[in-house]
Amino acid sequence: MFRCIILGVYFINMDFSITILGASSALPTANRFPSAQVVKHNESIFLIDCGEGTQMQLRRNKISLLKINHIFISHLHGDHYYGIFGLLTSMNLLGRKKELHLYAPPELRRILNYIWKQTGIQLLYEVVFHVHNYSGFNLIADCKHMQVFSFPLSHSKQNCGFKFCEKQSVANIRKDCIERFELGIVDVRRIKAGAGIYLIDGTYIDNKELTHHAPEPRTYTYCSDTVFVESLNTVIGNTDLLYHEATFAGEANDLAIATGHSTSIQAAHVAKQLSAKALILGHFSTRYTDVGFLQQEAETIFKPVFLAEDNAEFAINRITRATVQVK
Amino acid sequence: MFRCIILGVYFINMDFSITILGASSALPTANRFPSAQVVKHNESIFLIDCGEGTQMQLRRNKISLLKINHIFISHLHGDHYYGIFGLLTSMNLLGRKKELHLYAPPELRRILNYIWKQTGIQLLYEVVFHVHNYSGFNLIADCKHMQVFSFPLSHSKQNCGFKFCEKQSVANIRKDCIERFELGIVDVRRIKAGAGIYLIDGTYIDNKELTHHAPEPRTYTYCSDTVFVESLNTVIGNTDLLYHEATFAGEANDLAIATGHSTSIQAAHVAKQLSAKALILGHFSTRYTDVGFLQQEAETIFKPVFLAEDNAEFAINRITRATVQVK
Repeated sequence: MFRCIILGVYFINMDFSITILGASSALPTANRFPSAQVVKHNESIFLIDCGEGTQMQLRRNKISLLKINHIFISHLHGDHYYGIFGLLTSMNLLGRKKELHLYAPPELRRILNYIWKQTGIQLLYEVVFHVHNYSGFNLIADCKHMQVFSFPLSHSKQNCGFKFCEKQSVANIRKDCIERFELGIVDVRRIKAGAGIYLIDGTYIDNKELTHHAPEPRTYTYCSDTVFVESLNTVIGNTDLLYHEATFAGEANDLAIATGHSTSIQAAHVAKQLSAKALILGHFSTRYTDVGFLQQEAETIFKPVFLAEDNAEFAINRITRATVQVK
Repeated sequence: MFRCIILGVYFINMDFSITILGASSALPTANRFPSAQVVKHNESIFLIDCGEGTQMQLRRNKISLLKINHIFISHLHGDHYYGIFGLLTSMNLLGRKKELHLYAPPELRRILNYIWKQTGIQLLYEVVFHVHNYSGFNLIADCKHMQVFSFPLSHSKQNCGFKFCEKQSVANIRKDCIERFELGIVDVRRIKAGAGIYLIDGTYIDNKELTHHAPEPRTYTYCSDTVFVESLNTVIGNTDLLYHEATFAGEANDLAIATGHSTSIQAAHVAKQLSAKALILGHFSTRYTDVGFLQQEAETIFKPVFLAEDNAEFAINRITRATVQVK
């Protein structure tokens, strides 16, 4: 029982959360920065989009600039990348040496190189560019505990969504089994890989009886900016938590189509389609001062719906995979 | 007496103030944005430098983006211009049609054109570039009520300071004189231009007796970033209000020289040299959380000294030319 509690704590501590740095659409406001958010997973910090002011928002949320090793830029509309210049320069001033992985449209590499050249900046660390492929569901980052996939969205500019898929944890062997069956190092390795064992009398002990079952891996999907995409689930599968843009209210359907965006209602339909456990709405038009009604609209189709206010944080529970807002 | 009061109000309403949008040095913090400030003069709004987040700070201070017609970029270190991309793009999204005057190093024109081309942006308004000349004291903007001059500073990158010189107001003719001497339109025009009048009996009435004396024009000087410049007054003359960078405390003199910056003590010496009526310190290093002691240090040399906290506003009084902090 004691071991079980320890294990439970271990699982819950495997942090998986989303911090909203900016949730405005193209025009930022006094209280709403342009698009950027952080995915925290255990010790890793991933940055999705990097609108103007991202580095200040990172500081406000006490997130170290130097702990970010992977940045994903969805597309090259300014509200999704104008903060990259300041962030990369500040990392340099802070003495970064570690390489930084940047997943972005190819034009961004050219723009950065051009600016560095024109202004005489020489970064002291390497930026490893990973250029987007705008078709299909592609594994673009394969980290220790997390895989990140890109997939195409439908916007006025070529644009990617991202799906963060936690890797399956290795099963933990029950300590009482190690003693009872006198398991050696080789046995433990095999059991962790999924094997069962045969006892001397020929009895087979299944892997499930030797291990604590590891929870199902969690997933997070980011969709901004896009018109409503039919059958996205056939491309990317289901997700636990979905962030989906909701630039406009349901009544502004025509405007959404004309500008390459979605309504709150459409975002909710995508959440339903992906069998999500929760939906976060963001990328709000400046025409809406109070966005509470967008949440209410979306909840007529799907529940629960959260609002991506700047500096809000949402955690995905390790056991239930449900989402809670933690700040 | 009544007329006199009316006139007094008119003079005071001739607004001349500085709003600090950002006062950090190279690394912004959660509460201190990179360099940018607004000079308001009557109906005109001038922007000096445009660090990341300037457009959000403009909104926070309820300053219309579309009312800015002149932007002055001192130099191409990121903390002084990374906000220009977002600001220019937002002006476009807001439907700007009026031309915008941009006074900047030549590389900025190339960078902007490159980004617009790579990302398919076509501005709907004209950006009129005025490329810096880094030698001497040059009139770069000659507006209706204000002239702006650039002058070289000494930094690790070619850098300009700016001096804002209010134009001499036309003298107001005393209404009692119009009646008493039966002055016509032509007389009034001549008197406004400085002439006196002869009465029929040959008596000469001097211009000073016919007009309310217009206050002396006010001046504001912006110096960031620079090492201590000897005899700046021989280049730019005196000033009423001086903003001077004070990246470091007095004890960090060597560090200031090595990084191309000034100390609070040096900033105060420049204020004294320019016979300023007040000094604003800014561009603080992130090493100082509380910058109050920089003010105290500077006040051992010169008084009064103000601190450039984000969103602070300083007005230069029309009559006394003294500075007050209004928020």
